[in-house]
Amino acid sequence: MPVLVMKFGGTSVANLDRIKRAAKRIGVEVAKGYDVIVIVSAMSGKTNELVGWVNETSPLCDAREYDAVVSSGENVTAGLMALTLQEMNIPARSWQGWQVPVKTTSAHSQARIEEIPSENITAKFAEGMKVAVVAGFQGVSPEGRITTLGRGGSDTTAVAFAAAFDAERCDIYTDVDGVYTTDPRVSEKARKLDKIAFEEMLELASLGAKVLQTRSVELAMRYKVRLRVLSSFEEQSDDAGTLVCDEEEIMESNVVAGVAFSRDEAKMTLISVADRPGIASIIFGCLSDAGVNVDMIVQNISEEGRTDMTFSLPTDQVSRAEKALDALKDTGGLNFGELDVDGDVAKVSVVGIGMRSQSGVAAKMFKVLSDDGINIKVITTSEIKISVLIDRKYMELAVQALHDAFELEKTA
Amino acid sequence: MPVLVMKFGGTSVANLDRIKRAAKRIGVEVAKGYDVIVIVSAMSGKTNELVGWVNETSPLCDAREYDAVVSSGENVTAGLMALTLQEMNIPARSWQGWQVPVKTTSAHSQARIEEIPSENITAKFAEGMKVAVVAGFQGVSPEGRITTLGRGGSDTTAVAFAAAFDAERCDIYTDVDGVYTTDPRVSEKARKLDKIAFEEMLELASLGAKVLQTRSVELAMRYKVRLRVLSSFEEQSDDAGTLVCDEEEIMESNVVAGVAFSRDEAKMTLISVADRPGIASIIFGCLSDAGVNVDMIVQNISEEGRTDMTFSLPTDQVSRAEKALDALKDTGGLNFGELDVDGDVAKVSVVGIGMRSQSGVAAKMFKVLSDDGINIKVITTSEIKISVLIDRKYMELAVQALHDAFELEKTA
Repeated sequence: MPVLVMKFGGTSVANLDRIKRAAKRIGVEVAKGYDVIVIVSAMSGKTNELVGWVNETSPLCDAREYDAVVSSGENVTAGLMALTLQEMNIPARSWQGWQVPVKTTSAHSQARIEEIPSENITAKFAEGMKVAVVAGFQGVSPEGRITTLGRGGSDTTAVAFAAAFDAERCDIYTDVDGVYTTDPRVSEKARKLDKIAFEEMLELASLGAKVLQTRSVELAMRYKVRLRVLSSFEEQSDDAGTLVCDEEEIMESNVVAGVAFSRDEAKMTLISVADRPGIASIIFGCLSDAGVNVDMIVQNISEEGRTDMTFSLPTDQVSRAEKALDALKDTGGLNFGELDVDGDVAKVSVVGIGMRSQSGVAAKMFKVLSDDGINIKVITTSEIKISVLIDRKYMELAVQALHDAFELEKTA
Repeated sequence: MPVLVMKFGGTSVANLDRIKRAAKRIGVEVAKGYDVIVIVSAMSGKTNELVGWVNETSPLCDAREYDAVVSSGENVTAGLMALTLQEMNIPARSWQGWQVPVKTTSAHSQARIEEIPSENITAKFAEGMKVAVVAGFQGVSPEGRITTLGRGGSDTTAVAFAAAFDAERCDIYTDVDGVYTTDPRVSEKARKLDKIAFEEMLELASLGAKVLQTRSVELAMRYKVRLRVLSSFEEQSDDAGTLVCDEEEIMESNVVAGVAFSRDEAKMTLISVADRPGIASIIFGCLSDAGVNVDMIVQNISEEGRTDMTFSLPTDQVSRAEKALDALKDTGGLNFGELDVDGDVAKVSVVGIGMRSQSGVAAKMFKVLSDDGINIKVITTSEIKISVLIDRKYMELAVQALHDAFELEKTA
């Protein structure tokens, strides 16, 4: 029997009615002849409740105990889903991470899956079980302790199972009906994509389109797992949602697949830093040690042996970065004039694998922004993406203008 | 290091504040030099919430999934308790049933503990861990699935750990401060007992004194685990609560240790049953198959080859018993005249190991009841107990009169 993996997020299993609705969707796939592996999240709100208790109990907590506590929400949903399926006369059972076992590293609260032996579940499929309901987001360490996978862990669980069982597809049921050319709340012309390439999805995911976590897309790309994102709140046809797949599966596509943005960005500039080899390593090593996630980096042209170094980072990490750099200056590790902070910026990006073969995208992007009087503060590019940092107040305008200019409302 | 087992019930860990209070009690015992094994229940209300979800999803549910779901409440408390202890700088970690492992039978939702290997936890104690926090009420079957132990399961877990680790004592923290001569809500003269023998506690527990579950007392008696029942809501001295122990530890005791009662009793009489060998086996076999828990049984003197058979049972099992017996009559398996049901009775018992050596207790009990005009419907006796079935309206009066007559307000 072909295997299908289906993943239901927290809002899709928020209460018993929604679990029942999800179970009906599973029933449809079982009727088609699939052996189905279902990955479930905790009922929405439950994980937050558990995390709240842990944080109140112990702010700098033992991550092993954190994992033991917060993983319990998924176990509840897995059992309830198995029971719901059984009530529909579909042979099903639940599996907790340690029962499969989902073998992970010992990096508690952000563990990585190392191996998912398929024997146990495959044997049950052979005995007539139709659905294995697996608690997402969790696994077991070599020491036999419960681990969790960190943000987006259930998506990652789903993709890892699809890879381990050589599944035909991995369907991610969520509260949106697919991947859009941009956020429909920002541009009413946003259009749902039928297909998108892994690389594009990866750029969109890491750029703030919150449909799929970067990690799960990376994993899907590496193991060529076809991912479908679709809504658990609508009746579904066979081609519903958006298929994230290898670019070879996509016959024609627009040069630009989508416009992504990220609101919570800040820009910091170290003014008058000595321009000598190793200086960037000192600065960004220090920031990395402080747990700051630096994104874009630009270095100005050097004058008289000194230069300005600009980088972007999430807004909520600004004070941490300031503290780290000031400490570095105080201990003589780094000499610079001033530290300029701009907390009111946003990042806007255009993404598309078509850029590889078609030139002029960057020029067109800059012209569109310039025509609307939007000043670009920082630019970075990759093979399939161009990102700019602009004043936050222009963000919506920039997204809409770019969406129009690249005609994303039209299919290729 | 001597090992101490401490068990905290649902109300004792109902929220983070209470968990903290319990952790302080644990800290006191750690300071005395004990290696402590703590057994925790789910936060009060949590198990009911989970059971409610399961019942709503699947009324006749797969007990394996039931267990997977309802066991999660204890896991949460175990992790939170370990974190709370760590915050107090007490080396602690949590253990779920399968991690110890607590090996049980496969009788899901009412599994029995078969073995608790002590190596894993003992090794951690040797490494300097001071407290092992174990999720109560749960274990793992030979098939590797999660089991639960049924009602009172956490008490049973605690006693089983005390036996497995040869603990000096097993302290059961609950919402009452000990075992009383009778329920203080029924007699204001009720007195807390400092010590009570296992046998007495067993009779009291099975007679409706809800402090400890019968099963855990049986286990404690078998393995000679000294049990202490005490309140988690009061400051505790070293001799707080009630010690349940071998009778050899009790120097002097009253002839009667306590008066127990049970309100929800019913009496059924099969009138004019053929009095021939095997008839009792047919009747009570049929009731047992129907899941009816028959308690007291009395058979009248036989007249002309026919007799009346009377038995008591919990009120809520009456209709089930009627149905089973009527079916038996219809199929010709049993011939009887009428089925008389009295749903308004109560059971009152006096219990005490002193009865073994002292006679006249029964006579005194019957006289006390008779003096108050209370009619006795059924009598049963054991070596250390006399129980009577009376009209429910006289229950409180009977309890108070017996408590007075046997002078239970006074210590021996």
